[in-house]
Amino acid sequence: MPTTATLQRRDTLRTRLVSIAEATIRVHGVQSLKARDLAASAGCSVGAIYNVFGDLSDLVLVVNSRTFSKMGEELAKAVAAHAGNPTDELVGLSVGYLSFARSNTNQWRALFEAESSNGEDAPDWYNEQLGGLFGEIGRRVKLLHPNMADSDVTLMSRTLFSTAHGMVSLGLEGRQSGVPLDELERMIGTTVRALAQIDKF
Amino acid sequence: MPTTATLQRRDTLRTRLVSIAEATIRVHGVQSLKARDLAASAGCSVGAIYNVFGDLSDLVLVVNSRTFSKMGEELAKAVAAHAGNPTDELVGLSVGYLSFARSNTNQWRALFEAESSNGEDAPDWYNEQLGGLFGEIGRRVKLLHPNMADSDVTLMSRTLFSTAHGMVSLGLEGRQSGVPLDELERMIGTTVRALAQIDKF
Repeated sequence: MPTTATLQRRDTLRTRLVSIAEATIRVHGVQSLKARDLAASAGCSVGAIYNVFGDLSDLVLVVNSRTFSKMGEELAKAVAAHAGNPTDELVGLSVGYLSFARSNTNQWRALFEAESSNGEDAPDWYNEQLGGLFGEIGRRVKLLHPNMADSDVTLMSRTLFSTAHGMVSLGLEGRQSGVPLDELERMIGTTVRALAQIDKF
Repeated sequence: MPTTATLQRRDTLRTRLVSIAEATIRVHGVQSLKARDLAASAGCSVGAIYNVFGDLSDLVLVVNSRTFSKMGEELAKAVAAHAGNPTDELVGLSVGYLSFARSNTNQWRALFEAESSNGEDAPDWYNEQLGGLFGEIGRRVKLLHPNMADSDVTLMSRTLFSTAHGMVSLGLEGRQSGVPLDELERMIGTTVRALAQIDKF
């Protein structure tokens, strides 16, 4: 059984590794995260990293979880700015998503690039956090369409997210196939308003 | 000035490299394309590859161009199957896009993963090919909304593509945030029909 001192050292190293990984992802992107560089920055051995995190993807998951929290706070502010009816609030969520992705592009990308952020592989605590964000969408869809079956509310919530995500992704990458940056907010709003009206599908 | 025999050897090597690269991308994905492996498969030196293609991304661009052609043919069939009014044809294009991405996932992904497929960096012939596919969308938007300004037709075409692309991407990756595979076609159709109705934005 590890001693208290060992557990404390482990905890300190854990915090340091998360902080270094977060900075690396923010500046260079998740692809640049390497155990050897991490160990050098944290002043520990590569083995010590794997002693704390079973796998680098577990470390990325912790960083992604922090990104989710930060995004959740910003989305709440964006909703407050667009508060009124549920449609306006859904527009607020989407525009907030665009704004967060724009300001935190590498951290936002890491949410989708990490292999183990797939539903099947991710731990329950991660999926619950993701579920919380989708709950914010679903709650407003349900307010707009009180008689809609829950399974359809879920489908529409995912549709709303996927469409906004597609526009944000291609737009931020400056793809020729995407909506130009200066029109993104308007076109995301247009799409959300059209989808929010759909009662049956 | 190179002799005819040199030019022919170069041309034969070019064809062989494109064919090997296409097979590698199809089976293993564009990330697996390495000059050393290519050279070994083609029975040439690494230098010979760079003599034919300035850069591996130029080779990827040629493969992507072939993927576009193949996709164009399949989209034409999908439209024919949904032919009727322009809205149905837009649904056909989107469902065809889903179907193509599902059957040719790695080649389809390469269209978006290749760095130089960004509009600014890609050569004119590539952008013209992409423009041709968007012309198919825009033509139908214009039929639905004859008085819509051309700039708005372009914006709506990109919006239609981006929304369908977002749903296809997250759905095919099996993301928890995406629409489940067995509901994708229905929800893409729902989205396209809602967007196709929008006259002003």
